[in-house]
Amino acid sequence: MAEMKWWGWGLEEIEFTHEDKPELGPFIRRVLGIDADRIVSPPPRFEELTVPESRLPDDLRAQLERAVGPAHVSRDDRDRVVHARGKSLRDIVRQRRGDLPRIPDVVVRPGAEDEVVAIVAAAVAHDAVMIPFGGGSSISGSLEAAPDEARPIVSVDLERLDRVLDIDRVSGLARVQTGVPGPRLEEQLAVQGYTLGHFPDSFTHSTLGGWIATRSSGMQSDRYGDVADQTKGLRVVTPSGMLVTRPVPATSTGPSVRQMVLGSEGRLGIITEATMEVRPLAARRVILGYLFPTFAEGLMAMRDIAASECSVSVTRVSDAAETRFSFATRKDPTLVDKAQSRALRAYLARRGFDTELMALGFIGFEGSADHVRRERRAVGRIVKAHGGLCIGTGPGELYDQKKFDTPYIRDFLLDRGVIGDVSETAMPWSRLAPVYDAVSGAAHGAFDELGVRGYFMCHLSHSYHAGACLYFTFAFAPAPGAGILESYDVAKTAIQQSFVDAGATLSHHHAVGTEHAAWLAQDISEPGAALLRALFDGADPGGHLNPGKIV
Amino acid sequence: MAEMKWWGWGLEEIEFTHEDKPELGPFIRRVLGIDADRIVSPPPRFEELTVPESRLPDDLRAQLERAVGPAHVSRDDRDRVVHARGKSLRDIVRQRRGDLPRIPDVVVRPGAEDEVVAIVAAAVAHDAVMIPFGGGSSISGSLEAAPDEARPIVSVDLERLDRVLDIDRVSGLARVQTGVPGPRLEEQLAVQGYTLGHFPDSFTHSTLGGWIATRSSGMQSDRYGDVADQTKGLRVVTPSGMLVTRPVPATSTGPSVRQMVLGSEGRLGIITEATMEVRPLAARRVILGYLFPTFAEGLMAMRDIAASECSVSVTRVSDAAETRFSFATRKDPTLVDKAQSRALRAYLARRGFDTELMALGFIGFEGSADHVRRERRAVGRIVKAHGGLCIGTGPGELYDQKKFDTPYIRDFLLDRGVIGDVSETAMPWSRLAPVYDAVSGAAHGAFDELGVRGYFMCHLSHSYHAGACLYFTFAFAPAPGAGILESYDVAKTAIQQSFVDAGATLSHHHAVGTEHAAWLAQDISEPGAALLRALFDGADPGGHLNPGKIV
Repeated sequence: MAEMKWWGWGLEEIEFTHEDKPELGPFIRRVLGIDADRIVSPPPRFEELTVPESRLPDDLRAQLERAVGPAHVSRDDRDRVVHARGKSLRDIVRQRRGDLPRIPDVVVRPGAEDEVVAIVAAAVAHDAVMIPFGGGSSISGSLEAAPDEARPIVSVDLERLDRVLDIDRVSGLARVQTGVPGPRLEEQLAVQGYTLGHFPDSFTHSTLGGWIATRSSGMQSDRYGDVADQTKGLRVVTPSGMLVTRPVPATSTGPSVRQMVLGSEGRLGIITEATMEVRPLAARRVILGYLFPTFAEGLMAMRDIAASECSVSVTRVSDAAETRFSFATRKDPTLVDKAQSRALRAYLARRGFDTELMALGFIGFEGSADHVRRERRAVGRIVKAHGGLCIGTGPGELYDQKKFDTPYIRDFLLDRGVIGDVSETAMPWSRLAPVYDAVSGAAHGAFDELGVRGYFMCHLSHSYHAGACLYFTFAFAPAPGAGILESYDVAKTAIQQSFVDAGATLSHHHAVGTEHAAWLAQDISEPGAALLRALFDGADPGGHLNPGKIV
Repeated sequence: MAEMKWWGWGLEEIEFTHEDKPELGPFIRRVLGIDADRIVSPPPRFEELTVPESRLPDDLRAQLERAVGPAHVSRDDRDRVVHARGKSLRDIVRQRRGDLPRIPDVVVRPGAEDEVVAIVAAAVAHDAVMIPFGGGSSISGSLEAAPDEARPIVSVDLERLDRVLDIDRVSGLARVQTGVPGPRLEEQLAVQGYTLGHFPDSFTHSTLGGWIATRSSGMQSDRYGDVADQTKGLRVVTPSGMLVTRPVPATSTGPSVRQMVLGSEGRLGIITEATMEVRPLAARRVILGYLFPTFAEGLMAMRDIAASECSVSVTRVSDAAETRFSFATRKDPTLVDKAQSRALRAYLARRGFDTELMALGFIGFEGSADHVRRERRAVGRIVKAHGGLCIGTGPGELYDQKKFDTPYIRDFLLDRGVIGDVSETAMPWSRLAPVYDAVSGAAHGAFDELGVRGYFMCHLSHSYHAGACLYFTFAFAPAPGAGILESYDVAKTAIQQSFVDAGATLSHHHAVGTEHAAWLAQDISEPGAALLRALFDGADPGGHLNPGKIV
């Protein structure tokens, strides 16, 4: 099995390439002013790094070895470096630089809940810090210890807790160990005819526990719900014992403890097991592509779908810039594709579509054949009312196949000296256009300030009755001589600040960690942040549980 | 306008009667062994009470009068007695007895959010205790001060904060002041073409703020969601400033502060405003009655509906005992009704229904005419597969009209020396039958222990994908010489304990207060209860906010 990259996204063997996408090189040259064929900053070899020594005290090591067995206590350099951080742009840049001030002293891999209990007891007894580790895909800085952390740092990797324990078919509930990564979870459910239906961009490399700890949302969450909706029962190892919430569909037992664990990023304990709502695999599943004359019309169509009696699985529509990017990433088309594409272009021209303004959308349908047929018709009517056009299953199938490849693009860009990153937010439907304008203004303002040619694009990624998630991507090559992270911070800060200034939230599903903590109180108010502080201080007065995250 | 009863449910002018229900008197005699015509313990007159003096310090009074105006600061005896408690069985029995050890020293009625801010500042400055008061319909003991509370007690009645401030039609969001009672809220929304669709049994006498503070659920919540789903933005006055959550559809900003306010029962602050999901009034709305051969078949039908692609507004099915009670509360039927009823009985006999075992159900449909037609057909197929039978709109219309009258029955029974009360819980679908059996066993065990002839009945009141709420009613006349509350406690304790022992939750929508606090840690685990303690202590170190509730 390929190893996880210590310097970028995913597995060592996999990378994104422009070579099979004839339009991408020219597109990158045009919009970013760089040569896609020229690698200017490749990742270093591991051997070039200076890895700090493990500072694990012997007695803590002995206790951890008793807890999980010596084979599952690792002080290996590479293991410790992989576990040092997540995969935020900042994480990756610093890993590539070999900037490793304070990495875990040990990685432990429990194989059972009682082993997690023993780890927590050992860490607390030795005044160590624990950082739970799922798939390591966090892009909010949730996995890194403070650079001045003087106590031993224990990375608790839950990869061995990867089983679906039980499916209650009458209730549609599955009891699952939280270290399971997305694909292995869906495999185990699928053999029994079920799906969780949770597919974040990080799906291949993130885990159930990570989704819960960050309040994740997936591409089909319009149908299946966000992880906060799907998670019912929870088992969490805490310094004061097992925190257990029952897998009941609803409860009126004071402020929801279940909802405190959701999004807790390791600060309340280590989540070992969850009882999740699952559904039978849909008889039919189709994702259709649509074109809208403008992004604004596309957004309004999605709003009308959310307000209708339709229940679709995916709603996504890209702005003009992202639509152009999508078309630029097409693989070398066949002659048939080319002919179809010409015909489509002619048709669009006749309909008065401006290809520079048009917006590409996807809508997913899942359920019985009857349901899918009916929903397609109803959605078709709404799309038509907004001047939109169905372009069939082809683009949707392509989207469906390559949807998990996107995170690899960031490494491709970094190799070429380009910063590429994402930020996302949510807001009421009436605020979509103002927020989009504000964020666009902020990003382009940052590009101007930095004196760079930047690219900025956006799509709506999730719809709810009362609002939606907007997902922004930005990319630019820093000005000659300018620092990468310093340049990045200018753009990232401008965008995050524009979210909260425009009344949106600092993150819809990427969480807080250390990356977004500066904006937390502006979003949830000072007394709101104080509630979180009170909760964490009360649950973990010694600060052993992933200290410094969120607030 | 009629005044609120200080000794029972609802308004002084309204009461439940058996006189227009020819079968009810004989039914009560048969199942409880008492004479419905014989009133043995009428409520006392107010003048018979000994009302404790207000202990409000003059300087606090002066500051409160500056905050809200003298007209809205009341030390009137009746006002203070009405605000002393909610409407639990225990509350009402003690009110009727004139058992008033420690009632509010003052009732203040703010007319604006900044007045609430001034009240909170005054109360904290004078080391007083604040108890927020909405409709006063709590049945979990959330409104009562500790009998030994030495500090001044301020009841903060939000009745003047009763306006819908704004409807965002694009987003389907309404900004609402939280003191608004159900009917006045729905009136204001209806003139603009909207509904919140939140109809708890207490609807006529409960408020939006109360629903939020207790995590309420309504009769149409299958369609509209529980109040926890419907509530987006919140404004809460706290001792450390305004706690504000943004009205975003979803957010990944750590443990959900919104979900901490939901269910907080006044312990985190005074909720002044909420942004709620609202929906256009449905074009069509129908509630159909169904009969099932047994309760078990009825429950399985509801489970299959929840697992299907149907989306209905009401799911309700009663056990055999509640079905018999429902038939006994019919008003004097017309000749046409009688003929229809005879025909139905004959039809049921032919179909092999045992009228002693059959279960009455209601299913509600809301939406476009098309949607309602389609859902009726789909539900009809599921009902049929479980041996059920649609009995048309008549019973559903009756249910719809009298659904808010039920709470008055308790006073009717108390007048006749009978304890009648309710307890409800939620659990996964697979646990419905075992929980029902456990609770039934516990209740009948309690009746045996008390040596009484008791009546016990149940209905499923809410369905979710993964489970449902079971709502239990029990009634009995205490044995001669036995104390009312002592007898009540035996039954109530047995039922609540059976919930948590059987894996269900201590309450689905009635909240914790003081009434259910004894079972909290058994439900949410000791570490879960510790999280709530940490939260409350951190937010309110001085204990000014409704102390002693929940945990």
